[in-house]
Amino acid sequence: MHSVRFTAQTTTDGVVERDFVVGDVPGVLWSPASGPAHAPLVLMGHGGGQHKKTPALAARARHAATTHGFTVVAIDAPGHGDRPRTADDERVRADFRQAHETGDTARFKDISLRYGIALAERAVPEWRATIDALQALPEIGPDAPVGYGGGITLGTAIGIPLTATEPRIRAAIFGGGFFVHDGQLAAARRITVPVQFLLPWDDEHVDRRSTLALFDAFGSTEKTLHANPGDHRSIRWVGVDDGFLARHLG
Amino acid sequence: MHSVRFTAQTTTDGVVERDFVVGDVPGVLWSPASGPAHAPLVLMGHGGGQHKKTPALAARARHAATTHGFTVVAIDAPGHGDRPRTADDERVRADFRQAHETGDTARFKDISLRYGIALAERAVPEWRATIDALQALPEIGPDAPVGYGGGITLGTAIGIPLTATEPRIRAAIFGGGFFVHDGQLAAARRITVPVQFLLPWDDEHVDRRSTLALFDAFGSTEKTLHANPGDHRSIRWVGVDDGFLARHLG
Repeated sequence: MHSVRFTAQTTTDGVVERDFVVGDVPGVLWSPASGPAHAPLVLMGHGGGQHKKTPALAARARHAATTHGFTVVAIDAPGHGDRPRTADDERVRADFRQAHETGDTARFKDISLRYGIALAERAVPEWRATIDALQALPEIGPDAPVGYGGGITLGTAIGIPLTATEPRIRAAIFGGGFFVHDGQLAAARRITVPVQFLLPWDDEHVDRRSTLALFDAFGSTEKTLHANPGDHRSIRWVGVDDGFLARHLG
Repeated sequence: MHSVRFTAQTTTDGVVERDFVVGDVPGVLWSPASGPAHAPLVLMGHGGGQHKKTPALAARARHAATTHGFTVVAIDAPGHGDRPRTADDERVRADFRQAHETGDTARFKDISLRYGIALAERAVPEWRATIDALQALPEIGPDAPVGYGGGITLGTAIGIPLTATEPRIRAAIFGGGFFVHDGQLAAARRITVPVQFLLPWDDEHVDRRSTLALFDAFGSTEKTLHANPGDHRSIRWVGVDDGFLARHLG
């Protein structure tokens, strides 16, 4: 098992931000500058093409640390952020750009689906190793409740198979904005923990019905869908219950 | 113009409950036992077959008075609660029961649609006269912000045409649970105030797609859909933003 190796630390506005690596996966941990040990650990996933410190993600992480006292962790997905890109990664990015520029929506969808599946296969074991390593830290420990704190698009495409296979995750925030495939529907059916789901109502790429079918598939007794007007990149947290994770991890 | 005639008053747990009539429409007003004048006025509509003091409605009204300091008003819909039933009302009720018992879903839907339209036509002017009369009370006045505070099923079937035609309503909570018709879609397109919409995900009568189409139709820039598992009668307020009306009427 890899352990956590911290590489940098800053404190801003009462939140400690610590960069780390677990094996060759870089991550970041946000936690209240003062707070009890064993606080809930919340995993946040970034969107496609983004990274662990994308401003919107970092702002939500700092809010969660400040408001709820959570420890929040984000890691770079394969080929994202500070991680090297393979020749395959570069090819997929070029293909994406070309499909987008030529307006080839069928090819865009096909590339997106295949890339999402490949990334999730690599990212799920990385997340599990990260949780293992973080739980070995005395301030987190094996008993800190774990939740998946969202991320739409890629963050959910990875979060769904992760939550379906990782029994330590007790509640999860997901969101739309990606093409749904049968493997995700099957994983959603295996998920029974409480789910909060955010849907950008006007996503220009993804058929709304496929995302509603995904919400329908979750096996959870408690699941809430929140839909707000907004396109693919502009998910709005307006009206969304901010106490969801605190209620289930608290 | 009819004025408000109060007929009874009780105070329980810091909330004053006053029965009244405006013309021949009976209503009830809940308000904090102590609080400033001109507090926001929130209109609540009951479901089909229910009445102005249905326990779930009364509990939400008391919560709104206690938590947000709102004045909350509910009135009996035509043929409901303390109001006389016409021969037509009795016939519709008998038809409903029969269609339900014989499992004639097409007839059930047809009766429901026609009855809902007829009730809304009568109820909308009654609500407007009630607002007029309440605004003539010194403790409410013409400047108290007005919101529609929900009610699924019949409460929304009436609330949508009311909100579309009543410029005093600045924000509205609606919910699913009724058969949607073209007149409602047209009214929804005319509504531009912020909307919070609750959808019981597993309504056994109403096709989910028709309710999603209704949400889609609202002309509002700010509208949030909250969907929770639950059948026709069991709307759950889990995860729903309780600060919605306070934010827009505050």
